[in-house]
Amino acid sequence: MLKPLGDRVVLKAEQAEEKTVGGIVLANNAKDKPTTGTVVAVGEGRYLDNGQKVAPAVKEGDHVLFDKYAGNEVEYNGEKYLVVREKDLVAIVD
Amino acid sequence: MLKPLGDRVVLKAEQAEEKTVGGIVLANNAKDKPTTGTVVAVGEGRYLDNGQKVAPAVKEGDHVLFDKYAGNEVEYNGEKYLVVREKDLVAIVD
Amino acid sequence: MLKPLGDRVVLKAEQAEEKTVGGIVLANNAKDKPTTGTVVAVGEGRYLDNGQKVAPAVKEGDHVLFDKYAGNEVEYNGEKYLVVREKDLVAIVD
Amino acid sequence: MLKPLGDRVVLKAEQAEEKTVGGIVLANNAKDKPTTGTVVAVGEGRYLDNGQKVAPAVKEGDHVLFDKYAGNEVEYNGEKYLVVREKDLVAIVD
Amino acid sequence: MLKPLGDRVVLKAEQAEEKTVGGIVLANNAKDKPTTGTVVAVGEGRYLDNGQKVAPAVKEGDHVLFDKYAGNEVEYNGEKYLVVREKDLVAIVD
Amino acid sequence: MLKPLGDRVVLKAEQAEEKTVGGIVLANNAKDKPTTGTVVAVGEGRYLDNGQKVAPAVKEGDHVLFDKYAGNEVEYNGEKYLVVREKDLVAIVD
Amino acid sequence: MLKPLGDRVVLKAEQAEEKTVGGIVLANNAKDKPTTGTVVAVGEGRYLDNGQKVAPAVKEGDHVLFDKYAGNEVEYNGEKYLVVREKDLVAIVD
Repeated sequence: MLKPLGDRVVLKAEQAEEKTVGGIVLANNAKDKPTTGTVVAVGEGRYLDNGQKVAPAVKEGDHVLFDKYAGNEVEYNGEKYLVVREKDLVAIVD
Repeated sequence: MLKPLGDRVVLKAEQAEEKTVGGIVLANNAKDKPTTGTVVAVGEGRYLDNGQKVAPAVKEGDHVLFDKYAGNEVEYNGEKYLVVREKDLVAIVD
Repeated sequence: MLKPLGDRVVLKAEQAEEKTVGGIVLANNAKDKPTTGTVVAVGEGRYLDNGQKVAPAVKEGDHVLFDKYAGNEVEYNGEKYLVVREKDLVAIVD
Repeated sequence: MLKPLGDRVVLKAEQAEEKTVGGIVLANNAKDKPTTGTVVAVGEGRYLDNGQKVAPAVKEGDHVLFDKYAGNEVEYNGEKYLVVREKDLVAIVD
Repeated sequence: MLKPLGDRVVLKAEQAEEKTVGGIVLANNAKDKPTTGTVVAVGEGRYLDNGQKVAPAVKEGDHVLFDKYAGNEVEYNGEKYLVVREKDLVAIVD
Repeated sequence: MLKPLGDRVVLKAEQAEEKTVGGIVLANNAKDKPTTGTVVAVGEGRYLDNGQKVAPAVKEGDHVLFDKYAGNEVEYNGEKYLVVREKDLVAIVD
Repeated sequence: MLKPLGDRVVLKAEQAEEKTVGGIVLANNAKDKPTTGTVVAVGEGRYLDNGQKVAPAVKEGDHVLFDKYAGNEVEYNGEKYLVVREKDLVAIVD
């Protein structure tokens, strides 16, 4: 099991969508467009200066958008994951 | 549904206004001129160091000016949205 | 109406003064010389880390000096305004 | 009247002293040498994160040394002033 | 014994995994891919601004992923160790 | 009198020591080597975010080492002084 | 005596170890490898924003590893010392 530290979250990134124009597959490389993934594990959170610990506002199974330049790619049991800070999560997609 | 995280806000950006001079359409590319949009969803807010959570000072339906270099472009259900931090919202337009 | 967010202030900038030397109008482009304007609207303020909200120390109608490189230019109802952060207001001119 | 905002102070800068060597006037342009001025007006101060407002530690009439690269030059009623942040005041000269 | 200071942690880094393609050993040099190690010693922690000391959230024997560009390489009793800040630990691997 | 502001300290810098090799005087320009001086005046201190004022930990007459790139050179009554921030004082030499 | 200020510590650095390969002495210049020294004097500490003073977590006589790019080299009574901030001390070596 991967247990992320601090305000980190482990994600299973989704395949980037591809668009086809007349059968030609185009890579989606728009600048600043976040990528989607599913939350696999959530860290215990970060500390505020008053001593309060703030857990990330997402939970296992959440489908999220995250900043595509964020995080560390990790390989675990033959599968690839991404570990990102909570601040790099943009939105939950229901 | 897109549920923005932290102090983020989801916006539906408006078409940039165009100006015509003698029938010629001119792109509006003034430096530092904010762009307008409508608030579609509002995050729960950010934490102050005393543990207090501060929600963004806008609500769904608000028409806002935002810093044009801010935010992440997002595509959801075939529509484009912009997710920006509250600090990049400049003003509400009534 | 334009309702500035956070510690922002909406200003109606004044025409930069021009100086003439022998009838020739010279643009005033002194480095770091602030520009003047009139306060049109004031945001609700920013939060301190103790949770206190601090409103900008100016009010509608105040004549102010502001840092000329600050702010976002905004067009509203055919008039141009400037939205600046309180920290970029230098002084009130009575 | 010029009423400086925040922790700013309005100064009337003094003429930079000149040195003569054999009758030749030399501009004083030593790097990092502060310049002197007289305090004309003092802002209300800045906020600490505990909500306390801290006024600048100088008063009208004080003769001060200030960092020569600091501040905004201002023209008011035909006279030139300098508006500087308290942090750029180096010392009071008695 | 090596006793790390502040929020530092002493790690025994593991050999980077190698992949073979047709018998050829390939160095694993993926950008931003964290490296693994075992926690050997843990510092007493860092201070929050409220005076509270926060110990690192790992303990001796934990198997961790860490940011590969972090830390100081140390040689002690003929063995190599890595000393990293807690913030550069990405996740615990069970 | 020079009364330093905030956490500043006025120093009378000492002559940099010179070394002679075979009678040739060599300027001492070692990188990052602090310089020595005597404390002439001490500011009232800086504010912590809890409102407490912290005075510099040196007193008049102290012989100190300071970071050689720090401070503002000041001329007062025909003598040269250096005004430095407390943080640039390295040690007291007894 | 050298009395370090704030969170500084005075160290007596040890000779960098040298390695010999076939009798040839090789300088040890590994990037980011900390250097060792003995603590000679410890400052009173730094202030947290709650007014608490935090002393460095080392004491006279401690054998420490420190970041090799840190600190100011000081000469005192004909001996060379290094003055470093506590944050640049990496570990205590027992």
